[in-house]
Amino acid sequence: VSTGHWVEVEDGSPFPVENLPFGIGAIGPSGPRAFVAIGDHALNLGVLAEAGLLDGCGAPEGCFLEPNLNRFVAAGRAVASAARERLQELLGDPATVPPPEAVVERSSLRMGVPVAVGDYVDFYSSLHHARNLGRLFRPDSEPLLPNWRHLPVGYHGRAGTIVVSGTDVRRPSGLRLVGGSPSFGPTAALDIELEVGFVIGAASTRGVPVPAPTAGDHIFGFCLVNDWSARDIQAFEYQPLGPFLGKSFATSISPWLVTLDALEPHRVVPPPQDPPVAGYLRDDRPWGLAIELEVLLQSQAMRSAGADPLVVTRTRFDDMYWTPAQQLAHATVNGASIRPGDLFASGTVSGPDRGSEGSLIELTWRGERPIELPDGTTRAFLEDGDRVILRGWAAGEGATRIGLGEVSGTVVPASGE
Amino acid sequence: VSTGHWVEVEDGSPFPVENLPFGIGAIGPSGPRAFVAIGDHALNLGVLAEAGLLDGCGAPEGCFLEPNLNRFVAAGRAVASAARERLQELLGDPATVPPPEAVVERSSLRMGVPVAVGDYVDFYSSLHHARNLGRLFRPDSEPLLPNWRHLPVGYHGRAGTIVVSGTDVRRPSGLRLVGGSPSFGPTAALDIELEVGFVIGAASTRGVPVPAPTAGDHIFGFCLVNDWSARDIQAFEYQPLGPFLGKSFATSISPWLVTLDALEPHRVVPPPQDPPVAGYLRDDRPWGLAIELEVLLQSQAMRSAGADPLVVTRTRFDDMYWTPAQQLAHATVNGASIRPGDLFASGTVSGPDRGSEGSLIELTWRGERPIELPDGTTRAFLEDGDRVILRGWAAGEGATRIGLGEVSGTVVPASGE
Repeated sequence: VSTGHWVEVEDGSPFPVENLPFGIGAIGPSGPRAFVAIGDHALNLGVLAEAGLLDGCGAPEGCFLEPNLNRFVAAGRAVASAARERLQELLGDPATVPPPEAVVERSSLRMGVPVAVGDYVDFYSSLHHARNLGRLFRPDSEPLLPNWRHLPVGYHGRAGTIVVSGTDVRRPSGLRLVGGSPSFGPTAALDIELEVGFVIGAASTRGVPVPAPTAGDHIFGFCLVNDWSARDIQAFEYQPLGPFLGKSFATSISPWLVTLDALEPHRVVPPPQDPPVAGYLRDDRPWGLAIELEVLLQSQAMRSAGADPLVVTRTRFDDMYWTPAQQLAHATVNGASIRPGDLFASGTVSGPDRGSEGSLIELTWRGERPIELPDGTTRAFLEDGDRVILRGWAAGEGATRIGLGEVSGTVVPASGE
Repeated sequence: VSTGHWVEVEDGSPFPVENLPFGIGAIGPSGPRAFVAIGDHALNLGVLAEAGLLDGCGAPEGCFLEPNLNRFVAAGRAVASAARERLQELLGDPATVPPPEAVVERSSLRMGVPVAVGDYVDFYSSLHHARNLGRLFRPDSEPLLPNWRHLPVGYHGRAGTIVVSGTDVRRPSGLRLVGGSPSFGPTAALDIELEVGFVIGAASTRGVPVPAPTAGDHIFGFCLVNDWSARDIQAFEYQPLGPFLGKSFATSISPWLVTLDALEPHRVVPPPQDPPVAGYLRDDRPWGLAIELEVLLQSQAMRSAGADPLVVTRTRFDDMYWTPAQQLAHATVNGASIRPGDLFASGTVSGPDRGSEGSLIELTWRGERPIELPDGTTRAFLEDGDRVILRGWAAGEGATRIGLGEVSGTVVPASGE
């Protein structure tokens, strides 16, 4: 379908000209480079820049030839906006004659993690998820802890084990309670967490908080995050310092960073907060994002039989209790600085209804209501060979749909098995 | 005092020829470079390498001209050992004629954080500290949680706010309970944590645990760590995901990394562990380190009056319950990988006796027994203007003392005050 652009985009593509997400890909023997996705193609930004087609955007010299986007995103929101707008102009101008090597088939790229992640912070911002986990982990007490409605609870995850979509995930081993006693072995409760993350562009200064109203100046773009979790390891270890080995073995992210600009038409008013939050968390901007999300599961047997992945969860991001702006304002209010490439993830996105939960422990209620797969088996948690796919797209009313793409990963057996 | 070396070393220096710790310093207008400390001097490794004096060590070309030690430490233990031994040979050989710019006064260097820290993990490995904090934070329950003797409890801290000794620390603000209600403002319970950390040299592979018996192959060297803590912010936020803003505003480290080789003569048998630990945590090597530690405090008024800092804590590292090898084996047993420059800190080092506690909350028992300063004031927690200095030295029986140097920091008022 021609759209008047020199790269054609099929209807329904996650990556129309209104999107233009940035990523890092490699093709043939060449090293990783910066690309922008458009339909089934991708534009090699290094080639376009060398041809002078991105002049005037303010992107630092040579930043698109590096193996990550850090130097580009560090230049800040205005540069990112200018680069995306310039690309839209070029694509919309039939007179543009790009170097032939500037346009590649997207499927030919080997995608990488788009940024070198400095610090990775994971929040806990869905009311439904926090309530569900409270009920499951602390059945004898009030599910929401006293702090939950006052601040966006979060913690630091492991940046060094962030991997890109498509990377296999080895089943972790660790200590978990078996018959009431700690015992070492592979997790028997391997789970996923469906999350949406954002990547920092412009840095902040240590000692100087980022106010919620200016958070957008520091956010480069969004991706999907699968925060793999070993629930049994987590349950034994997490008191009093929080999750560690139950999470640190792998966190998968989607390869294309969708800019805040591309998501502007999909911003909505977030749910009201009660009680009112502290001043530093207040912001009238519509920081809800009308993103629809789904989780798909495909066993090894389903793959062998050619069966499509099964949708197990459908949910929405727009009713998250705590917003990205609040998360960023909170994380920096103590003077902690942020660096280009830092990743902030939302925490599991769960809705209020059955089938809208963003983790298996919630979806199956720790196995009480297992998922039935078309291969005749059931799942409480993940089995070896299972592939999990998270998909997301912004679909605000009256606006072109903007895909976040997908993040997938397949479980491989524990070491020594 | 001449020692037969071409750089003289005063008796009692923390940095005799048996030490030779590595760091990153800048002098005059030049950028940061790799140095080794010797007595009151430092050797510019880039200059020595360019003069061919470090040939054959296996250090990667140009690695000493970089603003951090990452590429050097990534080369692994054997290269670090060879470089240190080569420097000892050179220093012991009166015939060595180093380029004059290779030797600088140590006090002329502006020291930096010696490595770009990828991930920072903080443990909780002192039995006395864990018991004390349990009593203070959870007075109605058993102070040691059920997992504590089974695994080295730890969590991820913020790598991006690790600062070098001498950096001022701004008092953080955040939400804390005031009269039972959450209220925003500067912490009223600013504390320190006296810790010893180690920096990773050789990387490991994701999915492949580092066995405890080979942990030493991945440890480049040790430093002192002050894990500044805002106890009131921490107390309100830390359930269920652990400390976040109460810790993430700053972590100070000493600038000179003391190699594992330099500490070899100071290894001792650690305390017995009961119950016996899981197989992956077992290792017969003497991973206790005979390091003596102290905390000094100096108020603004004391400084103005020329009064020396007051020693408020004296303690020892050799009775830590969990060892560095166990911490590393634990952190990777789930397949999490480590990268050169990752920092692992011990958690607060506290002894069993009054005056051996590594944090103010323990030392003053949350203010019940305040510290009396020579300026006539008392301290439960830190006041603006207070300077904290941590010092450490390995002093194993019959071996030359090996200093870890010191890490200092001065508290400056909260933003907007």
